[in-house]
Amino acid sequence: MYSNPNYGSGLHHSHSISSNRGYQSSPSPYPNQTGYGYSPGPPPGADPQLWQWFTAVDTDRSGSISVSELQAALVNGNWSRFDLDTVKMLMNIFDTDRSGTIGFAEFSGLWKYISDWQGVFRHFDRDRSGSIDGHELAEALRSFGYSLAPSLLTLIEQKYASGSSTGYGPPPGITFDRFVRACVAVKTLTEAFQRADTDRDGWVTINYEEFMKIVLNAP
Amino acid sequence: MYSNPNYGSGLHHSHSISSNRGYQSSPSPYPNQTGYGYSPGPPPGADPQLWQWFTAVDTDRSGSISVSELQAALVNGNWSRFDLDTVKMLMNIFDTDRSGTIGFAEFSGLWKYISDWQGVFRHFDRDRSGSIDGHELAEALRSFGYSLAPSLLTLIEQKYASGSSTGYGPPPGITFDRFVRACVAVKTLTEAFQRADTDRDGWVTINYEEFMKIVLNAP
Repeated sequence: MYSNPNYGSGLHHSHSISSNRGYQSSPSPYPNQTGYGYSPGPPPGADPQLWQWFTAVDTDRSGSISVSELQAALVNGNWSRFDLDTVKMLMNIFDTDRSGTIGFAEFSGLWKYISDWQGVFRHFDRDRSGSIDGHELAEALRSFGYSLAPSLLTLIEQKYASGSSTGYGPPPGITFDRFVRACVAVKTLTEAFQRADTDRDGWVTINYEEFMKIVLNAP
Repeated sequence: MYSNPNYGSGLHHSHSISSNRGYQSSPSPYPNQTGYGYSPGPPPGADPQLWQWFTAVDTDRSGSISVSELQAALVNGNWSRFDLDTVKMLMNIFDTDRSGTIGFAEFSGLWKYISDWQGVFRHFDRDRSGSIDGHELAEALRSFGYSLAPSLLTLIEQKYASGSSTGYGPPPGITFDRFVRACVAVKTLTEAFQRADTDRDGWVTINYEEFMKIVLNAP
């Protein structure tokens, strides 16, 4: 049962992030990669540093970033690649003109979003392990306003962990990309449930198609 | 609305597969990789070929296969790696003793499961493109007994496609690993909905925790 009427509010910004710029750890597109071949200049007024990052990710110099270019550019702190599902989730959020790729204007929002999430991840990775464990995940979700039952927290931890529980010792942690996906999935699903729960009693009556639509629209 | 009372039944075996052995295309653990270092022999009565594959996948010679070993061994027809979520799904199905790894006895079932799915994938990949498009996906799900609304089929195609739609041209296809995950997800979600739909009228009344449990238990 969800218990906080503010659940889901301000997932991006409700958690105070004092200074997440300058966070040197991955994930980040390789900022030092220099361009080669023909490349049009940045649009007027563009942040030169952001333009440099954009052109580094846009490896085929098409002027926009594809799913595969974005996936190639994003790595976790342990150098593992972002899951395709997380990359597609980012594309879906920031490809506002539905072109299937990320243009420079869209890239600006994407970059800020990832930077903000890096700050959140670093904040909740209390033991500086580079991954989020079950306790840290519960803390993070609670700070976003989600009061989830322990059984649900365990399910989320297992689903988004970067490996399987071995039966002994703690389960493997959650890498950055999967942490972001887990949080966005909880937000998306909870908000969809809340919309269906018109009388706000914690129960919904839905048919198969509505149910599947909610699930399939979550990342 | 689901319409077929047989939905979900026999997803593995209901579709007739005449001959899926000998299918040479990926995914497969590298069968020609030979062992090195100390390795205990196969258990009595073990299929020597299966044992050879098992030891090839068990690269650290621990006697069982971890998530990372399985992920390293499995590739799609286009040589892309299996998604972690698909690998974890396979582990969850076949790690019957919940050790967190796949022993040789468990590997036998896993190998057959993948081989069977290869046959299904090959059967529905009518244009031999190496990936499943929306039409082929609809055909496959229909053959498993799922009569899904076109809007749901579109959502499934988009969610499991190996890239983003570009706005022009057809969306990218679904690779083998994501095809299997899509089918198992539809099966898992539909069966869970069906269990909740005790009076079989196509509607369920569930609370937030039940809803989240169903979703989080799907791969």
